[in-house]
Amino acid sequence: MINKLIAKIQKMNAPIVVGLDPMMKFVPDHIRKAAFSEYGETLEGAAEAVWQYNKGIVDAIYDLVPAVKPQIAMYEQFGIPGLIAFKKTIDYCKEKDLVVIGDIKRGDIGSTSEAYAVGHLGQVYLGSGSYYGFDEDFATVNPYLGSDGVKPFLKVCAQEKKGIFVLVKTSNPSSGELQDRLVKDGDTQKPLYEIVGGMVDAWAREYMPGQGNYSYVGAVVGATYPEQGKILREVMPKSFILVPGYGAQGGKGADLVHFFDKDGLGAIVNSSRGIIAAYQQEQYARFGGECYADASRAAVLAMREDIGTALGRL
Amino acid sequence: MINKLIAKIQKMNAPIVVGLDPMMKFVPDHIRKAAFSEYGETLEGAAEAVWQYNKGIVDAIYDLVPAVKPQIAMYEQFGIPGLIAFKKTIDYCKEKDLVVIGDIKRGDIGSTSEAYAVGHLGQVYLGSGSYYGFDEDFATVNPYLGSDGVKPFLKVCAQEKKGIFVLVKTSNPSSGELQDRLVKDGDTQKPLYEIVGGMVDAWAREYMPGQGNYSYVGAVVGATYPEQGKILREVMPKSFILVPGYGAQGGKGADLVHFFDKDGLGAIVNSSRGIIAAYQQEQYARFGGECYADASRAAVLAMREDIGTALGRL
Repeated sequence: MINKLIAKIQKMNAPIVVGLDPMMKFVPDHIRKAAFSEYGETLEGAAEAVWQYNKGIVDAIYDLVPAVKPQIAMYEQFGIPGLIAFKKTIDYCKEKDLVVIGDIKRGDIGSTSEAYAVGHLGQVYLGSGSYYGFDEDFATVNPYLGSDGVKPFLKVCAQEKKGIFVLVKTSNPSSGELQDRLVKDGDTQKPLYEIVGGMVDAWAREYMPGQGNYSYVGAVVGATYPEQGKILREVMPKSFILVPGYGAQGGKGADLVHFFDKDGLGAIVNSSRGIIAAYQQEQYARFGGECYADASRAAVLAMREDIGTALGRL
Repeated sequence: MINKLIAKIQKMNAPIVVGLDPMMKFVPDHIRKAAFSEYGETLEGAAEAVWQYNKGIVDAIYDLVPAVKPQIAMYEQFGIPGLIAFKKTIDYCKEKDLVVIGDIKRGDIGSTSEAYAVGHLGQVYLGSGSYYGFDEDFATVNPYLGSDGVKPFLKVCAQEKKGIFVLVKTSNPSSGELQDRLVKDGDTQKPLYEIVGGMVDAWAREYMPGQGNYSYVGAVVGATYPEQGKILREVMPKSFILVPGYGAQGGKGADLVHFFDKDGLGAIVNSSRGIIAAYQQEQYARFGGECYADASRAAVLAMREDIGTALGRL
């Protein structure tokens, strides 16, 4: 799946992933009204609104970007109906041949992480049959519990030829409270994110697909921390970096250069609200709510240009 | 809710939480066969089996223990049908007046953690109405992203009078890979779990219910690490400690003493497979699969005695 992701990035010249993180305040009036009039102002109504909103965006951008990243929390907040919308979104994106990165940030003790890995990337075996639960292509994984919590995902990735992105240095303002802590490492000291980066690198080298330069095991490093990105790029040469925090969170194209390898690969940059709620920004207000998906398409094109310029490709 | 939990612990003389972490291999044949014959060997069949299995256990133990802790991963592995069984389990346990600790280990950047907090502990507001998604009483939270990822949970806890348990030192063998790392702290060094413990203590003091000694904000510290438990008990005097790892993971009653306060409170000990799959252990094999729930009840009584003895109460 990492090779498919890379091939799509190259074909589209777009190391871009669109974060499908629908908040109700982003959903245009006409979609919300239609959903609520059909299902009432209920969780089912909210889930229908979210699904229709996503579908419009996917239809408008699937030929421009290689991948989408639905953030499961935004669906989970609507309970079971929300999670049904999450699953519908995954299935629809896969129909459109988009690579789906499930932003689930799971991580637990061994047997429990195995259940998450099976549910999101793998299949459960029941009698003579087997079934995929959510069936994303990649998942994000939290490393706080150590290798016990990550290895079950690695095993499923190897079986299914899928991948993970391990949280190393997250994009949020408080990420440094633990991740930047200086940690004893032999006779020297390193920030915790470098320790985690080193663990990711070891897993990455162990889980390489048959061909290609990059591992099934990638990392999450926020666009908002370009200096750390530069260091981590060197610490994890076999890992693709998923870079959130571009756009609404403050990261800019020029900040991104160090996340990429010399081959121009090695990173994929996420933008969520900057694209999916583009019509609410002054720059794209001309589209209005009715044409929100066209605004998203325009925002993708602008992001592609920004990143292309930063990488010296344009 | 922390005060309700404490009142129930005192009334039942049982600082015990039963982990409802159903794996298919625990489900007795007669339940699995009935579910599969009704729904086929499908995700729906597996979810039905899990739900019926849980229901039998809950019916057998609800008068003995104050709380249950369903581990969402064990349901999530069966996709949407599994999550429907998770929700049914929560609702049923609440009908039985059990306190429900959702072992979800969520944690993300601010707006995303807010969605998790709303979905699991709070309510979403849609038009004139509001709806609970999953509606657990407590949730477990992962601190790797720092305070951004925890504060949205605190806000919802204050609104809903619910609580969280933050992962501090987890029970699994590899938990030390990050959590035990010695971290620079001013002129001295501390293990990372103590840093996190200090953060938990600060949040705990800020989020106290109107009465009672314990905060809405608790911590997870594994029974398998009694020495660390002793230290963390002192670092976090206002926090209840949720203690996993008893029984099947190797923790014993005698290991638990230091997790409790002098008042005999301050901790609640989880056992999952030791109770829910008791009938598969030699000690309880006489019950057989048909009477698995009676075996679970016997295991709860034995655990209550073990902990009571350790605490010098018996």
